[in-house]
Amino acid sequence: MNLNNYIYGRNSVIEALSKNSNRVNKILISKNTSNDAKINEIITLAKQNGVVFSFVPKEKFQDFSHVPHQGVLAAVSPVEYMDFYEFLSQKHNDKYKKIVILDGVEDPHNTGAIIRTAACAGYDAVIIPSRRNAQVNSTVEKTSAGAINHIPIILVNSLSNVIDKLKDNDYWIIAADAHGKDNYFDVDYTNMNFALIMGGEETGVSKNNLKKSDFVVKIPMLRNFNSLNVSNAAAAIIYESIRQMIQSKNHSV
Amino acid sequence: MNLNNYIYGRNSVIEALSKNSNRVNKILISKNTSNDAKINEIITLAKQNGVVFSFVPKEKFQDFSHVPHQGVLAAVSPVEYMDFYEFLSQKHNDKYKKIVILDGVEDPHNTGAIIRTAACAGYDAVIIPSRRNAQVNSTVEKTSAGAINHIPIILVNSLSNVIDKLKDNDYWIIAADAHGKDNYFDVDYTNMNFALIMGGEETGVSKNNLKKSDFVVKIPMLRNFNSLNVSNAAAAIIYESIRQMIQSKNHSV
Repeated sequence: MNLNNYIYGRNSVIEALSKNSNRVNKILISKNTSNDAKINEIITLAKQNGVVFSFVPKEKFQDFSHVPHQGVLAAVSPVEYMDFYEFLSQKHNDKYKKIVILDGVEDPHNTGAIIRTAACAGYDAVIIPSRRNAQVNSTVEKTSAGAINHIPIILVNSLSNVIDKLKDNDYWIIAADAHGKDNYFDVDYTNMNFALIMGGEETGVSKNNLKKSDFVVKIPMLRNFNSLNVSNAAAAIIYESIRQMIQSKNHSV
Repeated sequence: MNLNNYIYGRNSVIEALSKNSNRVNKILISKNTSNDAKINEIITLAKQNGVVFSFVPKEKFQDFSHVPHQGVLAAVSPVEYMDFYEFLSQKHNDKYKKIVILDGVEDPHNTGAIIRTAACAGYDAVIIPSRRNAQVNSTVEKTSAGAINHIPIILVNSLSNVIDKLKDNDYWIIAADAHGKDNYFDVDYTNMNFALIMGGEETGVSKNNLKKSDFVVKIPMLRNFNSLNVSNAAAAIIYESIRQMIQSKNHSV
């Protein structure tokens, strides 16, 4: 555990939940702590702000024995998230905007690698749901090679609502799925705003989000072995959109 | 440590080095062991076969305390390698052959992910040098999601010699490098045998191998952040070759 990514002590955790709750990934409360007014306040604030909290054995606090943790820890994100509506209202240099949405990517290494590729490819943002996806923690930061500080990351409570809002704002929704109808390279990425949804390692894109998608694309499998890593799948699709963009610009000159 | 990936005991290790040395990744010898004739034989065989060996503290043998290891362990690959010359002589269904060469990829997770993508894309083989690259161990096996059993893996002592041989056999050599001249999608992958060289995370493709390459290609970076993960870079290039192949077939119908 990295101390830099934890806030400890009842008052500090209350302050983090009150003023900066979207950076709090989760709350750990020692099972051995007495349930006083401040603990109750922490639980109330966590519930209000959709932050996961759990009661854990005191052994979980061993690494923090040298600090006055008072039986409460908040794991905080190393990145300052961008607000979704702020992102929507921003003017961008590019004519069209490109977004990646993670929908249940559980492995922080995959989450970090996808953020890294999206940053290299000049995508405009990565959207991550606050539940059922790896949160931006120190492993994601490390795997992203620092890319979390080079591309806006947007944390949202409801992917479903965000996808609706994107559609209202002239975005096309493209889901990557092994059972997709089209090959990913048969979509023209050059003349639209779009959001590419990458699903979880085991579960894929959720059914509800698949239904909302304008395109469901697959990556062709050429051997009797159908198991591409999700960050590698993302890299193939993300860079196909960049290839099309660069080659269409060159052709139009 | 996974016992399945270790051979222990002096006679067993001598047999592995004598009959199947190319599956031996490395030899560990306890510093506390007496230097008898069999240990000397193991060291001689290791040297003859280019297998790395090292003397380690006896604590390294703790996990093997319940087996008669006699102070000697051989870490063996979970995969049966294909011989390079056997591969060259094989007939293939496809008109052209596609190979990935790893040149100093140190992280077993990246090595496994690249093997996985190459398998999905129907590439014909992955070539790995026996030194200065992650060897095929249980981590690579796991990260590859079992792909190591779906694509021929060729272990070679000298990449330089192998690249020369490939060129003699009508392969074009394509190195991926951040300072490459062409974008990776400006190469036509459809009408040649080729070997794609992916370099180490920090070092890139070695100078000598860059010189031997017919193409040195880069992946365009669209933000002031130039740090693509090597397995993601491999996925972008490997699937670009597949896109070209499928789309050129469709167009010619």
